[in-house]
Amino acid sequence: MFSPLIDELIQSLRCLPGVGPKSAQRIALHLLEHDREGAATLAQSLERAAAGVSRCDRCRTLTEQALCGICANHRRDGRLLCVVETPADVLAIEQAGSYQGKYFVLLGRLSPIDGVGPADIGVDQLVQLLADESIEELILATNPTVEGEATAHYIAELAKAAAVTVTRIAHGVPLGGELEYIDGGTLAHAFSSRQAL
Amino acid sequence: MFSPLIDELIQSLRCLPGVGPKSAQRIALHLLEHDREGAATLAQSLERAAAGVSRCDRCRTLTEQALCGICANHRRDGRLLCVVETPADVLAIEQAGSYQGKYFVLLGRLSPIDGVGPADIGVDQLVQLLADESIEELILATNPTVEGEATAHYIAELAKAAAVTVTRIAHGVPLGGELEYIDGGTLAHAFSSRQAL
Ligand SMILES: [Zn+2]
Ligand SMILES: [Zn+2]
Repeated sequence: MFSPLIDELIQSLRCLPGVGPKSAQRIALHLLEHDREGAATLAQSLERAAAGVSRCDRCRTLTEQALCGICANHRRDGRLLCVVETPADVLAIEQAGSYQGKYFVLLGRLSPIDGVGPADIGVDQLVQLLADESIEELILATNPTVEGEATAHYIAELAKAAAVTVTRIAHGVPLGGELEYIDGGTLAHAFSSRQAL
Repeated sequence: MFSPLIDELIQSLRCLPGVGPKSAQRIALHLLEHDREGAATLAQSLERAAAGVSRCDRCRTLTEQALCGICANHRRDGRLLCVVETPADVLAIEQAGSYQGKYFVLLGRLSPIDGVGPADIGVDQLVQLLADESIEELILATNPTVEGEATAHYIAELAKAAAVTVTRIAHGVPLGGELEYIDGGTLAHAFSSRQAL
């Protein structure tokens, strides 16, 4: 419609999650009309991050350094290791602010249908880590989905074999959640996991 | 939280309209985990567009060519000139598909408060265009806001001085719009602009 470079930009913006054709047009025109500087800065950041960011040697989260900020922080409690599926999960837990231990990021979950096996989620590396470090408790915080549960179960067995205590974060009705708006699966789980007062 | 390059990318993504801190994090992690290639392509497109895209010599819309695709298209009716505020307005009218004339894009609207005067919206260029081309009708399609109306009024006077017929697109209740959901200003306008059947 406009010109090759603009059409190409609109097309490229489609790689952003949640950005459809209309949003891509809106974003492209906004940047070109009002924020060329922001666009140029974003281009540079994307290029540098896409080329430079790799995985933390210890926990597999995204970082361009050998060790991520959390693994390199000696004030974090090395006796606790929390296993999560993604770097976004690390972020969510960090923003909650109560956990002081370290992490291991699977960067996925076991999914035989999609061809994702133990090697793809760094299980060898996790086993090595359990052998090398003085970890006392492995906290499984994979998602409460079928695949997340299967992944948690698989890792729990490995950790038990390594004589490490294994726990799973609690699932149930969220604080402040109103029962009438909670999905049935969560409610059923909340009942089956009920605890004596 | 993660590492300097990731934090920088999250910050840079904030230049995208509608992207707050949470979305920026989500987008950055998505690109780094799942679409490095898309990120690299987007970086290149942003850089090329930000550096290469300028204004069409004739109509001021965004393009990297001397003349945009519409101005360069000899099958468009050169007797009709539609004045709009932004390239996005051109796109919206093109997508409606009924207009076959050409455009002039103000890239703004008169706004004394913001220091936007006639020179900033290309009025000199528009006057020159009315003098140089065989334009029979100038269609004012600026937005029905206070500033858009003032801009339309200002341009209408110039066009009349150049002996060009001036029209304004109709405003009122949108087709398919239900009266009970239409804002009061639109409804009032629809009544004051009522036409005999
Ligand atoms: Zn790490
Ligand atoms: Zn043009």
